[in-house]
This record gives sequence, structure tokens and C-alpha cells, in this order.
Amino acid sequence: MADNHEKIATYIRQNEKYYIQRLAEVVAIPSVSGEAARRPDVFRMGEWLVNELKRLGASVETRAPGKQTLEGKELDLPPVVLGTYGTDAKKKTVLVYGHYDVQPAFKSDGWNTDPWTLVEDSQGRLLGRGSTDDKAPVISWLWVIEAHQKLGIDFPVNLKMCFEGMEESGSEGLDEIIYAEADKYFKDVDCVCISDNYWLGVEKPCLTYGLRGISYFNLTVSGPGKDLHSGVFGGTVHEPMTDLITLMSKLVTVDGKILVPGVYDDVAPRTEAEDKLYQNLAFKLDDIHSATESKTTIFDTEKEVLMARWRNPSLSLHGIEGAFYSPGAKTVIPAKVIGKFSIRTVPNQEPAKITELVRKYIESEFAKLKSKNTISVDCGHAGKWWVADVNHWNYVAASKAVQKVFKASPDFTREGGSIPVTLTFQEALKKSVLLLPMGKSDDGAHSINEKIDKRNYIEGINLLSSYLHEVGVVQV
Amino acid sequence: MADNHEKIATYIRQNEKYYIQRLAEVVAIPSVSGEAARRPDVFRMGEWLVNELKRLGASVETRAPGKQTLEGKELDLPPVVLGTYGTDAKKKTVLVYGHYDVQPAFKSDGWNTDPWTLVEDSQGRLLGRGSTDDKAPVISWLWVIEAHQKLGIDFPVNLKMCFEGMEESGSEGLDEIIYAEADKYFKDVDCVCISDNYWLGVEKPCLTYGLRGISYFNLTVSGPGKDLHSGVFGGTVHEPMTDLITLMSKLVTVDGKILVPGVYDDVAPRTEAEDKLYQNLAFKLDDIHSATESKTTIFDTEKEVLMARWRNPSLSLHGIEGAFYSPGAKTVIPAKVIGKFSIRTVPNQEPAKITELVRKYIESEFAKLKSKNTISVDCGHAGKWWVADVNHWNYVAASKAVQKVFKASPDFTREGGSIPVTLTFQEALKKSVLLLPMGKSDDGAHSINEKIDKRNYIEGINLLSSYLHEVGVVQV
Repeated sequence: MADNHEKIATYIRQNEKYYIQRLAEVVAIPSVSGEAARRPDVFRMGEWLVNELKRLGASVETRAPGKQTLEGKELDLPPVVLGTYGTDAKKKTVLVYGHYDVQPAFKSDGWNTDPWTLVEDSQGRLLGRGSTDDKAPVISWLWVIEAHQKLGIDFPVNLKMCFEGMEESGSEGLDEIIYAEADKYFKDVDCVCISDNYWLGVEKPCLTYGLRGISYFNLTVSGPGKDLHSGVFGGTVHEPMTDLITLMSKLVTVDGKILVPGVYDDVAPRTEAEDKLYQNLAFKLDDIHSATESKTTIFDTEKEVLMARWRNPSLSLHGIEGAFYSPGAKTVIPAKVIGKFSIRTVPNQEPAKITELVRKYIESEFAKLKSKNTISVDCGHAGKWWVADVNHWNYVAASKAVQKVFKASPDFTREGGSIPVTLTFQEALKKSVLLLPMGKSDDGAHSINEKIDKRNYIEGINLLSSYLHEVGVVQV
Repeated sequence: MADNHEKIATYIRQNEKYYIQRLAEVVAIPSVSGEAARRPDVFRMGEWLVNELKRLGASVETRAPGKQTLEGKELDLPPVVLGTYGTDAKKKTVLVYGHYDVQPAFKSDGWNTDPWTLVEDSQGRLLGRGSTDDKAPVISWLWVIEAHQKLGIDFPVNLKMCFEGMEESGSEGLDEIIYAEADKYFKDVDCVCISDNYWLGVEKPCLTYGLRGISYFNLTVSGPGKDLHSGVFGGTVHEPMTDLITLMSKLVTVDGKILVPGVYDDVAPRTEAEDKLYQNLAFKLDDIHSATESKTTIFDTEKEVLMARWRNPSLSLHGIEGAFYSPGAKTVIPAKVIGKFSIRTVPNQEPAKITELVRKYIESEFAKLKSKNTISVDCGHAGKWWVADVNHWNYVAASKAVQKVFKASPDFTREGGSIPVTLTFQEALKKSVLLLPMGKSDDGAHSINEKIDKRNYIEGINLLSSYLHEVGVVQV
């Protein structure tokens, strides 16, 4: 095996120019899922994948997620591309996921170069929309297949692929397809690997094993039947804004402590094993200062910051619908205002219980106000947290692969936000899901001048290849 | 004098059809000051007044307030029309103010009839845009002159008139003209009468002797250099929204008590004389319930409601700039948020002192939070309260006129909002200013189906006439 690793790694490094040229080919397809006019390009990118997979001898199927209305037009949703490479019952079956659509990009947004032309700069950065998010990771799976074929090396696993074209626009229709195929197309899957996030820092790879959930709340206070003039009515009526602001002020302290009673009850206690995962992470306080362009962190140590982001719940107040929001002055008493806030949830908080705690608390605080207005609280959307067992063989294999390719132990990271497809695979297939990123934290996905470092791309192909080899041999 | 009153009243009642036809003539001129395309109509309405005043033998001058930019166009502001009728040094000189521009109106807004065609319905209501606000009052001064001429009755005072065409759009340029003419065109003025507000209820006339002031505040909290994602940063940074909501929650209680220390110190104590003015007012709790389309009043008695509106300060929270405000969900941590609130001020609160109290309080509350964000508080606009001496001969005369025309004592009212020109006349001329409304509280100025009741219009002409007669004879 060790021999094969070096042999493949050498081959991949030797063919750097080819891989860059192929990346340029897909960056040149502006597959923006959020713009109606670009929809044909999204389809074109899907066809590119179908054709490449066929060229490599994979069997390919597509699923049509249906239609959507965008910019007033009814559009077909781009296909979910399903590929299978190998069906050897003696091998493990790995399902990989990625997306072939990209964020919008305009040179006029501030790009230094044309976003649809891959440019390599003097620092070895490959600039272009979709370079890191998520085209390099997606096509890298193909290059792993191709390298094995060129070198005549037996492929270490059965590979199933699921590539969608709507990730940047809410993955419309994807969940239904995953659930529908769980016992069909995906039925032999032993583990899942998603390469669509980023290293914690810029030094070394990470394996991401957790995501926070989110429960998004609307707190509505209604009073008068219409907006009132504060000159005429100020001081005479219970103003919905006063009630709402009072209630919102009771949700969270300035240093981030959530005030809803019971909300911390089900938060998993820290364990020694977990604490160890926070040692030697490639993360400095300066990283968050530079990301927020400020020095407004609540905590003074890296570990506290990351625990606050990854494993502790948080509550953010996002805004108010129905109130005045423009520059200037308006002397309105809004008749109905809706406060928007969300709680980022963590193991082992249950969304339904969180909603009940929030509702009960707000209703009891509102009762204390003795206002004549009325309120309602609803959880508009709840997505669950996700956390994987880092001792699962899927992670053991990935960890060994990182060690082999980068001569370093990976950071074990979580993310504060949600990547919904992770939870969908977890719940639909009930197999270990691993997030194995290729790009760095400074790649600027969704921003101008998006890039992937040449080293991350080329050694990323190596990493994915090594990962599959380690999965092939790891003890289950 | 009594004979003349009856003689004039009879004449005016006999000519009801003529007055309605003349009102229809001016309602048909859509003098909307807020729409660029209607600006020629505003000028046409100004010319109509100039011509009518000349026809009646008044001397007329106009003042051009300058230019403004509206809908991207540079437009001339409509003229301030100044008229003088009579210059007898032995008579008192009364200055009357009104405006000849109107609010926008479209049939499609929900009008039952064409807004620019005066329609009399079966209940004696004269429907049309500007009917009550403020065309009937403005032209009624002309009909008083005309009636005296027709009847050969000596005019009881010297009348100075000031009619503007921008009241519905911020009275641009008017203050400068009033101050500039204080010692010139307006130099002999003994008292001022403005007919541009409404009866307290629908039963009987009122004399309005007070208005609240307003101090409008912006409270800015700044933290990160850009908006952040709550998944990535929630729980790790001091969020500006949390600080702002916490501070805003400390400004006013749900039942309207302002929490800024010292803010009530200079509120004028209630006197027995003042309390008497609140007896027998034509106002019921049902009036405010119907106006607010709710039963959310803080107080249970009419007197408390009116005192809260007229003579006590209030604080309203209007909204937040920079936060999320749309329907739906956005998981943003806004980088910079500006809370908007205003205090309605009353005698003897000084705007400068109010600003200092607010600033000092907010800064001290913010210091307690120990947040790493920064704040600033500024008073964007301060307009002072106004209150007149109800024992001044100007009010005595008006009260007698009401008694004569309506066989009832007027309500003595204040208003919770501001009518800035009132304060300008008061401060520029230093003479008693009286607000003598013609329309009812249910006339729907600024709304669809604006109307003035025929009785209010016709007896309103009588009222203005009687008022001038009473001013002519009242003991100074």
C-alpha cells in the first residue's frame, strides 16, 4: 500500500499542469444557480460531469429535482448527478458528495481578474469563481479514478458519487432525492465523505466532525390595528415595540449567556477526550480579530472562542420586521412588530424542547409586563446539530491519510453554522459522515478573488486518493 | 354687534350653495406639493388665491421660497402668498395662516369618489382631497371679507394673510420668510390665528392652546467591521444588536414611564386651572379605541389619556437601522445598528437638557454592560413644545365666537404632535397664537375619502367672521 501511495502521489504531482488546465475548463463554465440567465450553464456543468464520469467508465444516472420559480421564470432544476465506480462486494463502498454550481461573480464586484478565467498568480494561488467552492474538490474525485487507471492500480473501494447543482441556492429538491435513494442507489454505502468546507486555518488539514443546529424564532407583538403617529398616541397606548424590545432584552446577555431557563440543561458536558481535540489547533485569536475586523471577542483564549463557536449554544438577535428601518427619522408607533432571533443548538439539545422552553419563557415574561398587546412565538425553522464519532474507522482512515500526505496530524474541528446535507445523509443513510475539506480558511468562497492554493488542490487530490486507500484497509 | 353677527350668519347660510361651488373649484385644482408632476397645479392654486384676494380689494404680495430637488428634478417652490385687507391704525391687526397645497390622492387608494371632484353625500359630507385640509379654512377667510362687502358692514379688524403651498412637504423656506418679515410685513400684527387642525371629537369646536415638542434620537452601536454570520460568530463576539436592545429596553416601561433619570424634573406641575380645562371635553375612551383600532390604552379614564397625550412627555421606540427587517429569516449579526427613538417634550423641558440627560444615562448604562463595542448618541432633531395663555384676549375672543355660533363653550385642547409653524410665529412675532380648527376629528385629512361636513364649513365661515368681530371689540 505504501508503495502505491508514493507512486500515485508522484504521478499526481507530475501531472499538476493537466489538473490545473482541467480546473480552468470547469471554472470557465459560469454555473451560477442563483441567476436565471445562467441556468443553462449549470446544466452544461452537469453534462460535463456526466461525460467525464462516462469517459472514466463509471455508470451514471441523473435525478431531476423538479422546477422552481426564479426571477419570475419557471425553471428546471439542474440534475443531481449520481455516479458509481466499482461494484466489488468485497470492497467498502464510499459515498462522496459535492456541488457543481457556484456563487454569482462579477468583475465589477472588485475582482482583480475575470472570475470565469482561472488565473495562477505568483504565489501559487489559482483564482476564479468556484475554484475552491466546490469545483476543485468535485473534479478531484475524478482525477483519483483516472490516476488509478493510468497507473493500472486496483481501485481500493467502490465509489458512489452524488453531485448537485443547487447547493448555493438552498439545495432545492436534494433531500427528497437522498431519502428516496437511501435504500436504492445508496443502499450499499458504508460511509460518507463530503469535501465542501475549509481548513480551520491555513497551516494544516482538518477533519470536521460537528456542526451546530439552528432554531430560528419569530416573536410577534401586535397592538393597534394600524401604525400610529407618536405625537398623537405616544404615552397613551401600550406600544408593541416597547414590549418587543423588553422581551428581546431578556433573551441573552451582552457576553453571550442565554437567559432562557433550562436551555443549557441538555448541553453535553465536556469530556477529557473532547478537551484534547482542542489542543494544538491551527487557530490564533488574531484569526478571529481579522475575520471580524475588530477586537470584540468575548473570550481571551483560542480554546474558549472555539468552544463558543463549536460546542456551546448561542443566541443572536437579527432584527425586527415591521418597525422603522431606514436612515432618517420617522415618528411611527408600529402596530405589529416581529422580533427575529435564533439559537445555535448543540448536542444534546432537542429542537422541540428548545422551542417549548423559549415559548414558555417569553410567555411568562410577557405576562409580567401586564401589557394589553398580544404576542405569539413561533419557531420558523429548526435544523438539528450534527456530531460524528471521531473514533469511527471513517475518521481513523482520514486521519491516517492526512498524516501520510501532509506529515501532520489533522485538526479535529467543528463548525458553528449548519451544512444541512450532512445531517440529511446522516439521518437517511445512518452511516458515518466525514467532512474532509480541501481548501484553506482564507480561500474566500462566496467572496471576490476566490482562490484555491495550487498545493491544496494537488495535495488535495492526493489526500482524497489516500483517504480511499485507508478506507480500503482500515479495520472495521 | 349682535345684530351684525346674525345678519352675517344669515347671509352666509343663505349662500351655502355658492360656498360649496367655490370649494369645488379649488378641490378641482390638484395642488399636491409632494409630486413633481403636480407642481404647476400648486402654482395655479397660488394664483387662484392671488386673483381672489385682488378681486376682493386686498393688497397682495408673494415671496418665493427658492428651489428644491424632487424626484431628481430641480423645482421652484410655490409662493408664500401675503395679503393685507385693511390698514386702519385704530383697528387690531390679525394674522391668519393656512396652506393651499394638499396630500397626494389616487382613486385607486380606495376613494369612493374621484378625489379631485367635490361630492356632497346624503349625510351632508363634502368629500374631496383638501376639502378639510386646508382649503375650506383658507378660502373661508375670503368669504368673510366678501360677506362684509356684500352686506356693507365695516370690517372689524385689519386682516393679514399668510398662505403657503408647501405645508404637506415640510414647509420648505417658510420659516426664513416669517423671520425675515417679522418686522416688515408682519410688523403691526397683534395676534395670530391658524385654522389647520381639528376638533377634539365630532360634537363641538375647540381652541387649541398647546403642542408637544419632539427630540428625536439616534443611538448607534458599532462592533465588527462588517456583518457576520451567526453560525460562525454567534457566541464569540459582543453583538451590537444585543447591546442596542439592552439599552433600548432601559428607556421606557411598557406602561409608558420614561426611565431616563431627571427627565420629569422640569415637567410643569398640574394646576387647578389647568385641571378645569379637562372637564367636559368632547372625548370618550371609545374615540381612542376606534382611532387605534384596538383596546390597548394604558389608562382607563379620558382625562388620563388626554393628559398623557397633551401635557406629559412620552418616549416611543420607532425602529432600528442596520438590522434585518424583511419577512423571512436571515442569520446575520449586524455590524452596526442604529436605534431610533423620540421623546415628546412638554413645558418646561428644554431640548438641550433632555439631550444631555439621555446621553449621560445611555453612556452610563452602556458602561455597565462592559461590552467591547462602541456607542454614540445624538439628537438628530429637536423641536420645542408650544403652549399659549388661554386667558389672553385672543382666546377670550375666540371663545365668545364659538359660544355665539355654536351655542356651546369650546373644548380647550392641546395636541400631542407638533405643528412647527405655530412655534415659528410665536417666536418670530412674540404675539398670542391661537389654533382655531374648522373640521372634525373624523374628517380623514391625509386619508382616503377626506371630507368636511357642510355644517362645519358653513358655520366655520361664521366662526371665523365672529372671531374677527370679537377680536375687534375685546378688551386688551
